Amino acid sequence: MKIVAAKKILKANDQLAAENRALFQRAGVFTVNILGSPGCGKTTLIEAILQAGRLRHQPAVIEGDLAGTVDAERLAARQIPVLQINTEGACHLDANMIAAAVRELPLDGVTLLLIENVGNLVCTAGFDLGEHLRLVLLSVPEGDDKLVKYPTIFQSADAVIVTKADLAPHFDFRLDRVRADLRKLGNEGPVFAVSARTGEGMDQLLSWFAGRLPDRE
Amino acid sequence: MKIVAAKKILKANDQLAAENRALFQRAGVFTVNILGSPGCGKTTLIEAILQAGRLRHQPAVIEGDLAGTVDAERLAARQIPVLQINTEGACHLDANMIAAAVRELPLDGVTLLLIENVGNLVCTAGFDLGEHLRLVLLSVPEGDDKLVKYPTIFQSADAVIVTKADLAPHFDFRLDRVRADLRKLGNEGPVFAVSARTGEGMDQLLSWFAGRLPDRE
Repeated sequence: MKIVAAKKILKANDQLAAENRALFQRAGVFTVNILGSPGCGKTTLIEAILQAGRLRHQPAVIEGDLAGTVDAERLAARQIPVLQINTEGACHLDANMIAAAVRELPLDGVTLLLIENVGNLVCTAGFDLGEHLRLVLLSVPEGDDKLVKYPTIFQSADAVIVTKADLAPHFDFRLDRVRADLRKLGNEGPVFAVSARTGEGMDQLLSWFAGRLPDRE
Repeated sequence: MKIVAAKKILKANDQLAAENRALFQRAGVFTVNILGSPGCGKTTLIEAILQAGRLRHQPAVIEGDLAGTVDAERLAARQIPVLQINTEGACHLDANMIAAAVRELPLDGVTLLLIENVGNLVCTAGFDLGEHLRLVLLSVPEGDDKLVKYPTIFQSADAVIVTKADLAPHFDFRLDRVRADLRKLGNEGPVFAVSARTGEGMDQLLSWFAGRLPDRE
């Protein structure tokens, strides 16, 4: 019974996600779903993308959290549209929440919508938001065994971004293992190792990211 | 409709959890539910508890993961009963899984059952397993703002254990903030800061833990 209900919810979500994607397409908004554990560096990655002047895109951000406005406040100083979704206990964003958010967040002029999902390496994986690109983050302190333990989300990733790479000397973290485990999951996507603190790997990631965005001009 | 289904599932879970608790009580098994994000140090904490010789208890462990047997293998060398639950995608352990696991895991002689939940700071909070004690872990690299963002799980904690405390110099992590935010959630429980690497704070935590266990002799 539980499973049947879950399947129905997922099916309804897929339909809403398709509608979101069509809306984003019509509006010329490239949409990115950013996923990962609590504290893995999702907001920091968004800040790095926003700072990368070379992306000639007009950004907006949707922040997903169970409660609070910590991340939205952090980004608010940047003079871009930011909307905070409070899921009030729900463990993931879904397409319906995004549809509702987009009604509140005027997309005029916006060409790049960055969505920070709830910090969760499990439930967020199953819900298409209508995004064009899905980035899954894994921070070095979490350990290099996470693809074996949480395969679904890594299977669905367009790219895996290993964050806090400057901490690698403090941990026995093997980037090779992450790459090998990703291939075992049948995902041939790229793996980037970055550190927001030292800047390591950020150029390579942002070049790849810029290449995925539709041309502007 | 979604909410109604979720409520029904939670109600059914509460009933099964009460049955588990009664069974543990009859069998003289003190049961601990260990929760936290992926890679926050749940297995390491279990190892520290197992190593603490002073606990005159006979332990067994249930490991919860979406897939794989990484953690169970890690503990298997210790000559104690270990059972791995693979949730096959599900984001939390529930009371029914524990009831099924206990049928597989003979409790004869066992007096302390440590349950490592799925790495998830959201969904695990809502499911009582029938435990006597609930420990919620937060690792320093995750950041000190997590109680604001994920209030439910911290509200439900009998103790909050800040792990990887040796990394505090690398992060702007304020233990005072964690304690203050916990109080704001109406939780007067203790907050421990520990490092498995340096041993910092572990004595204090294990003393408290030993005090919560029923007397043995």
